[in-house]
Amino acid sequence: MQTKKGQSIEDASMQMIEDEIGLHPYSEKEWPIVRRIIHSTADFDFADKNKIIFHKDAIESGMKALKNGCSIVVDVNGVIGGLNKQNPKDFGNDIVCNISKPEIMELAKKEGKTRSQVSMRAAKSDIDGGIVAIGNAPTALQEVIQMVKEGIVKPALIIGIPVGFICAAESKEELSKLEEVPFITNLGRKGGSSSASAIINAIFKLIRAESAS
Amino acid sequence: MQTKKGQSIEDASMQMIEDEIGLHPYSEKEWPIVRRIIHSTADFDFADKNKIIFHKDAIESGMKALKNGCSIVVDVNGVIGGLNKQNPKDFGNDIVCNISKPEIMELAKKEGKTRSQVSMRAAKSDIDGGIVAIGNAPTALQEVIQMVKEGIVKPALIIGIPVGFICAAESKEELSKLEEVPFITNLGRKGGSSSASAIINAIFKLIRAESAS
Repeated sequence: MQTKKGQSIEDASMQMIEDEIGLHPYSEKEWPIVRRIIHSTADFDFADKNKIIFHKDAIESGMKALKNGCSIVVDVNGVIGGLNKQNPKDFGNDIVCNISKPEIMELAKKEGKTRSQVSMRAAKSDIDGGIVAIGNAPTALQEVIQMVKEGIVKPALIIGIPVGFICAAESKEELSKLEEVPFITNLGRKGGSSSASAIINAIFKLIRAESAS
Repeated sequence: MQTKKGQSIEDASMQMIEDEIGLHPYSEKEWPIVRRIIHSTADFDFADKNKIIFHKDAIESGMKALKNGCSIVVDVNGVIGGLNKQNPKDFGNDIVCNISKPEIMELAKKEGKTRSQVSMRAAKSDIDGGIVAIGNAPTALQEVIQMVKEGIVKPALIIGIPVGFICAAESKEELSKLEEVPFITNLGRKGGSSSASAIINAIFKLIRAESAS
């Protein structure tokens, strides 16, 4: 849902990224995703120092699940803010974010955990078979990895791109070693909710391009 | 609204930033704002290549207006997503984001503008005396600058930190030349809704620290 002017600005931006990026290691389906992250951050480090890492089944599995109306579970409201809302509307995806619920706060305090960590376990039934996108909290990503290892969830795709100084890089490294569940993640401290939304928006674009062709 | 664990992670992150930043040019009130942007992006460029620029009255004017319950007008929902919601609740600030309204889409199409651009003029009465925070759209920032020059609004503070390839740097340079209205902006292409939210969250922290002392 964009005006002609909005679309022309986006097209010109994407062209600038193409002109400046030079050679890159990404496949035909990976590159539009990485390019959209660079577009939303103006940060070419996401193709280099903080580069994006794709599990071999990530894009196919994510496209299939989203197209079939799977849930999208996010750690923070910022990820929702950056989503193109027309997509989940058209494909019937529920967006789940439990972090602000009072019972999550209570439980987190009781268990000595972070709110986002507890909010992941509370979304168990939506994460299983769904897409989970973490843009902010390494503790949330660690919790999802733990749930996968416990065998209680099998998400169609984990988008794990939290930003931060404490355990962000480490949690993403741990994710990149998962073999049983498709993931998209990146190297280092950088990331964020805008990058998480950019990845989801880009996958929906791939779905629309595929059905248009 | 944070758990003990959440707060301890934040404190440790801030300490890492302090340890790594070295010398910087920011004043005692400016630094907590810049530090919070670095915290939310893991990007030290915001203290250097993309450094934050403060109008001399920016922090005082922003603190006073927020404390008195002024409106907070934002260009995109992502800025709202990153806000600590307890602050506007406690201080009675209305948060205004018109971009998703159907009438804004209609008007933007009719006038050949972007939605965010048109959404700024639609928020005229809230921008006047309020805080406007732009994290995404250079066209929205240009529109606010134009409205200031036309003399139809006088915001208490313009937070202009859009990200992007087309006119982002240019719109921020134009903002940094405004003398009649306090602003916080930065150099270059980088920015984003997380940075805009971080600035607002940090100003609220300054208000709370002041009233606690």
